[in-house]
This record gives sequence, C-alpha cells and structure tokens, in this order.
Amino acid sequence: MPQYYILVLFFLIFFSSSSHASVQDFCVADLKGPDGPAGYPCKSPANVTVSDFVFSGLAKGGNTTNIIQAAVTPAFVAQFPGVNGLGLSMARLDLAPGGVIPFHTHPGASEILVVTRGHITAGFVSSASTVYLETLKKGDVMVFPQGLLHFQVNAAKIHSSAFVSFSSASPGLQILDFALFANNLPSALVGQTTFLDLAQIKKLKGVLGGTG
Amino acid sequence: MPQYYILVLFFLIFFSSSSHASVQDFCVADLKGPDGPAGYPCKSPANVTVSDFVFSGLAKGGNTTNIIQAAVTPAFVAQFPGVNGLGLSMARLDLAPGGVIPFHTHPGASEILVVTRGHITAGFVSSASTVYLETLKKGDVMVFPQGLLHFQVNAAKIHSSAFVSFSSASPGLQILDFALFANNLPSALVGQTTFLDLAQIKKLKGVLGGTG
Amino acid sequence: MPQYYILVLFFLIFFSSSSHASVQDFCVADLKGPDGPAGYPCKSPANVTVSDFVFSGLAKGGNTTNIIQAAVTPAFVAQFPGVNGLGLSMARLDLAPGGVIPFHTHPGASEILVVTRGHITAGFVSSASTVYLETLKKGDVMVFPQGLLHFQVNAAKIHSSAFVSFSSASPGLQILDFALFANNLPSALVGQTTFLDLAQIKKLKGVLGGTG
Amino acid sequence: MPQYYILVLFFLIFFSSSSHASVQDFCVADLKGPDGPAGYPCKSPANVTVSDFVFSGLAKGGNTTNIIQAAVTPAFVAQFPGVNGLGLSMARLDLAPGGVIPFHTHPGASEILVVTRGHITAGFVSSASTVYLETLKKGDVMVFPQGLLHFQVNAAKIHSSAFVSFSSASPGLQILDFALFANNLPSALVGQTTFLDLAQIKKLKGVLGGTG
Amino acid sequence: MPQYYILVLFFLIFFSSSSHASVQDFCVADLKGPDGPAGYPCKSPANVTVSDFVFSGLAKGGNTTNIIQAAVTPAFVAQFPGVNGLGLSMARLDLAPGGVIPFHTHPGASEILVVTRGHITAGFVSSASTVYLETLKKGDVMVFPQGLLHFQVNAAKIHSSAFVSFSSASPGLQILDFALFANNLPSALVGQTTFLDLAQIKKLKGVLGGTG
Amino acid sequence: MPQYYILVLFFLIFFSSSSHASVQDFCVADLKGPDGPAGYPCKSPANVTVSDFVFSGLAKGGNTTNIIQAAVTPAFVAQFPGVNGLGLSMARLDLAPGGVIPFHTHPGASEILVVTRGHITAGFVSSASTVYLETLKKGDVMVFPQGLLHFQVNAAKIHSSAFVSFSSASPGLQILDFALFANNLPSALVGQTTFLDLAQIKKLKGVLGGTG
Repeated sequence: MPQYYILVLFFLIFFSSSSHASVQDFCVADLKGPDGPAGYPCKSPANVTVSDFVFSGLAKGGNTTNIIQAAVTPAFVAQFPGVNGLGLSMARLDLAPGGVIPFHTHPGASEILVVTRGHITAGFVSSASTVYLETLKKGDVMVFPQGLLHFQVNAAKIHSSAFVSFSSASPGLQILDFALFANNLPSALVGQTTFLDLAQIKKLKGVLGGTG
Repeated sequence: MPQYYILVLFFLIFFSSSSHASVQDFCVADLKGPDGPAGYPCKSPANVTVSDFVFSGLAKGGNTTNIIQAAVTPAFVAQFPGVNGLGLSMARLDLAPGGVIPFHTHPGASEILVVTRGHITAGFVSSASTVYLETLKKGDVMVFPQGLLHFQVNAAKIHSSAFVSFSSASPGLQILDFALFANNLPSALVGQTTFLDLAQIKKLKGVLGGTG
Repeated sequence: MPQYYILVLFFLIFFSSSSHASVQDFCVADLKGPDGPAGYPCKSPANVTVSDFVFSGLAKGGNTTNIIQAAVTPAFVAQFPGVNGLGLSMARLDLAPGGVIPFHTHPGASEILVVTRGHITAGFVSSASTVYLETLKKGDVMVFPQGLLHFQVNAAKIHSSAFVSFSSASPGLQILDFALFANNLPSALVGQTTFLDLAQIKKLKGVLGGTG
Repeated sequence: MPQYYILVLFFLIFFSSSSHASVQDFCVADLKGPDGPAGYPCKSPANVTVSDFVFSGLAKGGNTTNIIQAAVTPAFVAQFPGVNGLGLSMARLDLAPGGVIPFHTHPGASEILVVTRGHITAGFVSSASTVYLETLKKGDVMVFPQGLLHFQVNAAKIHSSAFVSFSSASPGLQILDFALFANNLPSALVGQTTFLDLAQIKKLKGVLGGTG
Repeated sequence: MPQYYILVLFFLIFFSSSSHASVQDFCVADLKGPDGPAGYPCKSPANVTVSDFVFSGLAKGGNTTNIIQAAVTPAFVAQFPGVNGLGLSMARLDLAPGGVIPFHTHPGASEILVVTRGHITAGFVSSASTVYLETLKKGDVMVFPQGLLHFQVNAAKIHSSAFVSFSSASPGLQILDFALFANNLPSALVGQTTFLDLAQIKKLKGVLGGTG
Repeated sequence: MPQYYILVLFFLIFFSSSSHASVQDFCVADLKGPDGPAGYPCKSPANVTVSDFVFSGLAKGGNTTNIIQAAVTPAFVAQFPGVNGLGLSMARLDLAPGGVIPFHTHPGASEILVVTRGHITAGFVSSASTVYLETLKKGDVMVFPQGLLHFQVNAAKIHSSAFVSFSSASPGLQILDFALFANNLPSALVGQTTFLDLAQIKKLKGVLGGTG
C-alpha cells in the first residue's frame, strides 16, 4: 500500500511538468486582453472556475415588446467567455405572435436551430438564389450554412422560441436592414447598389436612424 | 423597363458560370459515398431540397426505460446529412428521474448544452484533474471543452432534458464503460492499465457483454 | 564520377517510395468527381500539365453592355481547377462608365481587390453597421473581410477594371437583389423580413424574374 | 562585379520591408505572455537562437522507480517553446519491466509512437468500443487517433522505451485514473457515472489522493 | 410610425450586447502588439477606419535599376495591417527587360499571379521534380502551390509587371540564393548539402555578402 | 441484475444509431480511392484492423551504400494509410559515416527530429536568411518550421540515425538538387534564376540525369 503513495508521487513529479501545456484544454477569454484572429487571450487557469463554463443569460427570453416583436439573446464569447477558442457559441430567439428575426447573415459561422416553443417559419437563400423554406414545429432542427442570408418568423399564434448554436465563438451578426439603412451610406449609393427606389431607402433610413 | 430584362440576362450570363463554385455554400452528405477526412462527398445540388436541412428526429426524447434511465438521440452527419462540412451537429439528452449519461468523451468536438426541462448536474474533468461541476436549471448553458471526460445526471425528481450542440458534424462518442468493459480487451490488461480490481472488471464485463 | 550515378540511383530508389505522398503538393480538381467539404478529388498527377495551373479567361473583361454596365468574370475552382485545395482563387471586375457591382457577399472567403484601370468606389459594412467606403485609384488595394456585404461602383468616366482574389478556391457569391427578388420567396415574407414596401418588392421581383 | 553589390543592395532594400512578415516562419513561444487559442505570443525574432529549436530533455528517460514503473517525459510547448504554432510536439516513454502507461487520452492531438528499445504492448479503443491492440517490436510504429483512450505496457523483460509525437504543440494529457479518483468528485457521483462499486472508488481515491 | 422608433431601440438594446463579438468581423493588426501563431492582436475597433483596409503601396512598382532588374513590393500584414487574420495578402512584381525574380518559396502560402503588363515566363517544380513552365501574356493567371520552388522571368522586351496574391496574411519569402549564400553557413557545409563546387559557393557568398 | 442487461440493450439501441458518425474517429486511407485536398477516402471501418495502425517499415534503416551515404525511409500516408486525416506522419533517417541528407523542404509540414544513434549536424535557414545550426547528440530533439530549407549531416564517425515526425500525413519532400538539376528545366533558365554558373549547372544536370 505505501507503494501506492509512490504512484501519487510519480504522477505529481512526472506529469506535473506538463501542467502548463494542459492549459490548452480550454482557454477562457480574458476579455480585457487584446482580441486576436483566433480569439481572446486565456484567463489564468488558476482563476478559472466552473462559473466560467456556465451561462444563465439564456434562461429568459429578451423583451419582445418592440416593433419586430422578437428578441435575440446572444451567448457569444463576449457574453460567455468560456466558449473562447472552442469553435462554438449559442443564442436564444424569442418571437411574440407576429414576431420576426429579419434577414441577416453570420459572416463567420454556420448555425443550427432547434424550436423549443411554438412554430417558426425559417428560410435561407443560397448563392444560386434558391430558397430553402420550412415551417418548423417544436423539436424540429434546421441548419443554415455559413454566411448565407436567412430569417425566422413566428408561425404560431403564441410566443415561439428557439435555441441556436454556431460553429464559432464569435459568429458575427449582420442584419440586412441595418447594413443598408442604419448608417451614413449615401442614399444615392444605396440605390445604385441595391436597385431600391430612393423613396424606399429614405423611408427606411428615417426609421432606422440612417443619414445621407 | 426593357433595360431591366437585360439586367436579368446579365446575371444569367455572367454569374451563371460560377454556379458550380457556389455549390460550396453547402455540401449535403451523400452517405452512400465514401467518407473522407473532411466528411462525405456532396449530394448533387440539383437534388438538394429544404428537407436536407431539416431534422425532426429530436422532437421526441429517446426511450428512458432502461438501466441508466436516460437516452441520447444524435443528429450527427449520419442522421442529419445537411450538417456535413458545416462544423456543427446536435443531440438531445433525456433523463428520467435518476437518469444518468455516464462518463464519456467526444474525441472530435467541444459541446455546448442547454437545459430545456428539469435540472441537470453536469461535470467535466480537465487534464489537471480539476473537476468543473454544476447543477443547471432550465435555460442554463454549459460548455464542455473538446476531448475531456464529462457526464450528465438528472438532478430533478421529474424527467429532465437538454439539447447539446457540437463543434463538428461528426463529434464521435466514446463511453468510458463501453471502452473498458464492452469488448474483448483482456481483463488482466484492463486491470493493469486502470488499477481497477479484477473482480470489478469481470463484473462490469459481464454486465456490458465484454469478454476476456 | 560513377559514384554520382549511384546518387541518382539512390534518389530513385529511396525517395521514389514517397512519390505518392508528394501528390499532395497540389490537387488539381477532377470536376467530374464528387465535390466534398474540402474540394474536389484530385486529377491523377500523371495527367497534370502546366495548363492545369494556367488560366487565360481573365485576359478579357466580360461584356458590360447590360443594365449594370458591369461584369464579373470568375476564376474559381469550377473555371480554374488548378486552385482546388490551395485556399485561393481570382476574378476580374469590369465596369463601364456608370457600372455597378451591386451589394453582395462571399459566404466563404475574404477578398482583396486591386484596381488596374480607372477609379472604383468600393465599400463594405460591418456587423456594427459601420460603413468603410473609399474611392480607389489605379494600383490601390482594398480588402473586404469574409462574409460582409460590399459593393463596387465605377467612379471614373472611363471603363474601370480590377482583379480580386479570394481566400478560398470556392468563395461563393450571394448577390443581395437576387437573394431577395429572383426566386419564389413570397412577397409578403420578403416584406416581413426586410421591412421593404410590397410595391417595391413586387417591382424588383418583376424585374429580376422572381415570383410569389 | 560591382553590379553584384547592387544586387545585395536590392535585396536589402526591397525585401527587407517584408522582414516583419517573415517572422511568421516560426513563432517561438514567449511563455511569459498570455496563452491564446492558437498558442503563445512569439518571442521577438531578434532574440531567437538555435537553442530555441533544440531540446535535450528527452535524452534521458524519466525515473521509473515508482508504482507504475514507467515515466512520461514531455516536450510540449511548455517545455519546448520552439514548437509553438507548428502543430507538433514530442514526448518520451520509459517502461521498466512491468511498467505501464495507464489508460489516457490526449484531448487535442493524434499520436504516433516508435519503439526504440524492448517491446511494448499498445492499444486504443474506438467510439465503437473496438479494441486495436498490438505488441510492438523495436522500430515498429503505431498511430493513435485523436481523443481516443489508449495505453502502453512493457511487453519485454527489459526496460523498454519509445518516442511519441503529437499533431499539436499542446496535446493535453488526461489520465483516466486521475480524472476519476484524484480529485474531489464525490464518490457517489463517480459511482453513478461509471457503474464502479463504491468500495473500488474509495480504494482508488485513497491511493490517488482524491477526496469525497 | 412611432412604432418604428421602438424598432431602432430594439436593435440598440438587444443586438448591442453582441457588439464585442462582432469585432471578429475583422482584426486589423496592432503591429505594436506581440505577434502570435494566428497573427497580430486586433487594433481596437473604435480606432479602425477605412484607411486600415486600403493600401496604396502597390500603385508604383519598385525600383528595378539593380542587378536582377526586378522588384518585389509586398502588401503583407507587416505593410498592410488590414489583412491580419483574413488569410490573404498581395504583392507586386516589376521586371525590367531582362529582369528576374530568382528561385524562391513562400513557406506558408500558395500564390496566384496575374500579368498586368508584358510577358512573364514563370515556373515551379514539384516534389516529384517535374517542371511546370509557362510564358504568360497580359491577363494570364498562374497558380503556384504552397511551399514549392518557383521563379518569374521577364519574357518581354519591355517592362513587365504582375500582381500576386497569397493564401496567408504572412506568406513568408525564402529566396534560394540568400538562404544558401547570404549568411554564415560554412562553405564546406553548403557544398556537402548542395553538391555545388566550393568555388561556385565562395563566388556567390562573396557577391551576396555571405561569410564562412 | 437483469436490469443490467437492459443497460446493454440500451446502449445497443440508442447509441448504435451514431455508429456511422463514429467512423470519423479515424479514416484509414483507401489508397485506391481518389486523393483529395484533405486526404484519401476512408477504408470501410468494418475492414479496418489493428494492422492498419501499425507500420514496421522503419524498423530497419535504408541502404546507405550510395553517394550521399544516407537514406530516408518514409512512413507517409502512401506507405502508412493509418495516418490519413490525422495530421501527422513519420520517417527514418540513416546516415553512414560522411552521410548527408541534402538541402530540402517539406512544402506542407513542420518537422521534429530525434537522434537515436550517433551525432547529427542539422540546420535550417529562415526567410531572413538566418542559419539555425546545431550538432545534436543521441536523444536531442530539433524542430524545423514548415517550408524552410534544411539539411542533416552525420557528425559522427559511426552510423547515425534519427526519427522525424511531420505535422501532416503528406508532408511532401522537395530536394533542392533534384528540383534544380534532375529535370528538363533549361540550363540557361536555371542560371538566370539561381545565379549559378552554367558549367556548374551542366555538371550537376549530368550527374542527376537532368536535360536541357
């Protein structure tokens, strides 16, 4: 039996030298450090606790008393540092009756969605302009390939919700209307590059706080 | 206005030549083709429909009337060809009261879990042998870094369930007990390489159908 | 000197066994083979010639006598099989006076552009909806990060052209107007998910051959 | 001939501007810098010498006068900063007669082993619970796919040794017994998630310094 | 209409929490930060302007009044921080009549070249020692697979130029003659490892400033 | 106890559906299948045995009775199909007294070397033309970053040997002398692109079987 203590000793001596390397098991983001192409620097493993790997911010849906009657609640690396470097993240979608997550892309990730309440009509469009459109029931899963335009619309008379996961800790989110109308891109240029009528552009710029 | 038809023509002529390339928007698995290091060959885009991107197999939980009183239902590339090449996949966990998903690893992916019903006690162990253990409530999210041993246990008196997502279309699943006891690895060798007592090994081999 | 012949022999004998492995120097696409997540299968190296690595299709600009007065000529893997697996590809932009490459994304690649004639006003919009806009002169280079909406407009009174390169052999190309208006996505759904007026949607659907 | 000096000058002037970029030839770890998902920050190239690329710590085997009669000596990034960012690393295995490297995984890398002395019985188990087991002679090579449980046992009456290489500078190392028994994971929870008997668990926890 | 302002509010509230994550749209290099295996740390997005994504240094060719009568002007991450993390970069080649870009490799990238003036004879050699050689006209494109020896020679009586793009922000550049003759590698060792005659080695060492 | 049989049943039923996915634990090369950018297609797992993961071809050194008095014996994917898709491979170096592995690169991998007999002088040259040169003793390890020119020379009076590992299953091997002199690249062009004297070129072309 005292032999066994030598075993303990053995591991402490011979494997402890690799403790530094094992940090790479995970790399909880130190959000105060400078971001880099592969993510944030790692928090010192000595300070990592289980709470770094747990996120409670998706337990409640966002407030849907707004014009789109919907909310997106992200658990990306900025909200959930534990996903840093692991190549995944999540978000929660909530859609009141009539709610819409408008056309958007995630420039850096594919997305997989599972409906947890109600019905959701979801669609994406390929480079070949083909539409892939489906009304999903509770428990249905749909996948949206990286970078393609897609949307989700409540198809139920009740509140619908879904969880979505991404193939990146930092998938990005480019909402089409905001890209076109919520900044200072001159209206004429928007018109030239979208074929939309000027009146339409100015109307939505007005609504979304865009100028020019 | 006739000018506009030329626009259509323009796109058809000049961009259509890139139609082949745009296949790479997605690569729905042709499961009859030979698997490769990056996944399965792509189904011809002409035959792809929205149903390739939708999976209904997670709508119901698996049967938990078994000894572990739990079930794992996968939506990996083999069940859900639409995730091929997209770097993600899903599964559903169901745990009856007392249910357990025993210690296991995913050799090729990190995992993110969200509780959708009940309470789940989940934990993983790092290379440094530190335990990260938490009892999760409905809506809580937990991340399990790639390749590390982890488990989930029902912490509620009711049926609990969760959705899990992976950073690979083919995360793999190595269940510790099956790796050790459900094959023909000689008992003496199992003992030598795990320090478990021979009686313990033979007992579990008996239970799990192992030989040797 | 006869010793030297042994050298030759040496190489033939000892290194020749690695000849198969060296195939992976390159992997010219066999476009008849099934595409996969990482690209096409490789053409047999015995049949590869220098012409597989050379492409003359960008020597002339595309026809710009169309409504957008512009043309995109791709040298993606589908046109230029030599780039398969090498993580890059090219295209040529031609813009007659008044020409426009409308808002689009490349779901799978970043882009770098160099102006070779005239002046081009180019811009992209970030996830934060910030516009990055510049009028480029001959020889100027601009980079467009992966998956973000961007456009190019002729800023000269003469024909302008540019070469663009991508960080993928198969960058994809999603043109905003085509994604929204050149398919059968129902007009009401387009309206709901873009906030565009129905009249605007129907007008552009009419122009671009969309239905619904 | 003076022309030639202009050549030197040419290179100094025109290529020197790319000297910064060429740092990326290698990125010797600055272990004092914060680790990140892709590895450590690079030591300034001005301070890099050949000794950063050479490691003598594997010349001698570790001390095997312990209960497992074996030793693992790592040359991971933490011990050998020159491998940072290069996607490989090494270790040395020493097994006295009767020596065992117990069941373990490398969460972040595949492994390739070559026997340099004696005989070694090595095995790994797949997700399908199939055992791949072989007794290797001097000079034999065996590969262990990423993340799978594996072990090595001395099969000779003499001291055996091997060199192993990994497909990561930071492969990690999770020893099964330590993950289960050398920490404060409650014994009841270990039992629930491994099906091991409580007495067995408490015995090994006692040996390996675990509590609970 | 006032509803619309709620929409704006909605986006500001619900999506702004993801603003940090969206930084990963791009990662303009902070060249003062420490380089890492995946590139430089990101400049704070608040300080990023369009000028970070535009580079004018390739508008003019380098000075070719030197012995090789040629110039390479790089737009790698060190010169053009906007390409950091995007997996591409560019350079410009200028060749006066008789000009030569001598044999070299890019250790970390494939290259694609487009001729913009004159004629260029370009070639690369595979691991199998096969030569892929072509004389390219204006507008012709050629691709050079990663890490292979290649060169470019002016094939016109006039000044020729080309733009080249790389599949890395930091492709590296190893010029054969400089690797062999422009350092202190002992001449005898160069001879032993290249089979070149000592006189030849000493002559080129003299020309290129090498010693030993 | 009969409960336990239900456990077995449970696993067989619920996890067996993921058996296809677990194929991706490994992907033994089917060398008769077409190579692809990520490697060869996978051999059917049903036909995989442990012998696919074991290679005995490095047990003996290659024949060194040749002019360079050295031999390289590869265990790349073409010789050792088990490494397909795993991102690593090996080779063995044997150097008789006076033996030399001449200047070469691996276009697709970094290399790590461990001396197993004798002494070896090894060196590599960076893009900045700096030489990193060391004489290694038995057990010493040296790493050679991807794509850089390097060599190994016997520094002992006895036969020396080493094992080398690579960060790719298909690292490639470009031997400088063969690239320059063992093919039909015209001597004048070799001269123009290497600054070597024509006599030197023709001499080595003669030796190595080159023409032109």
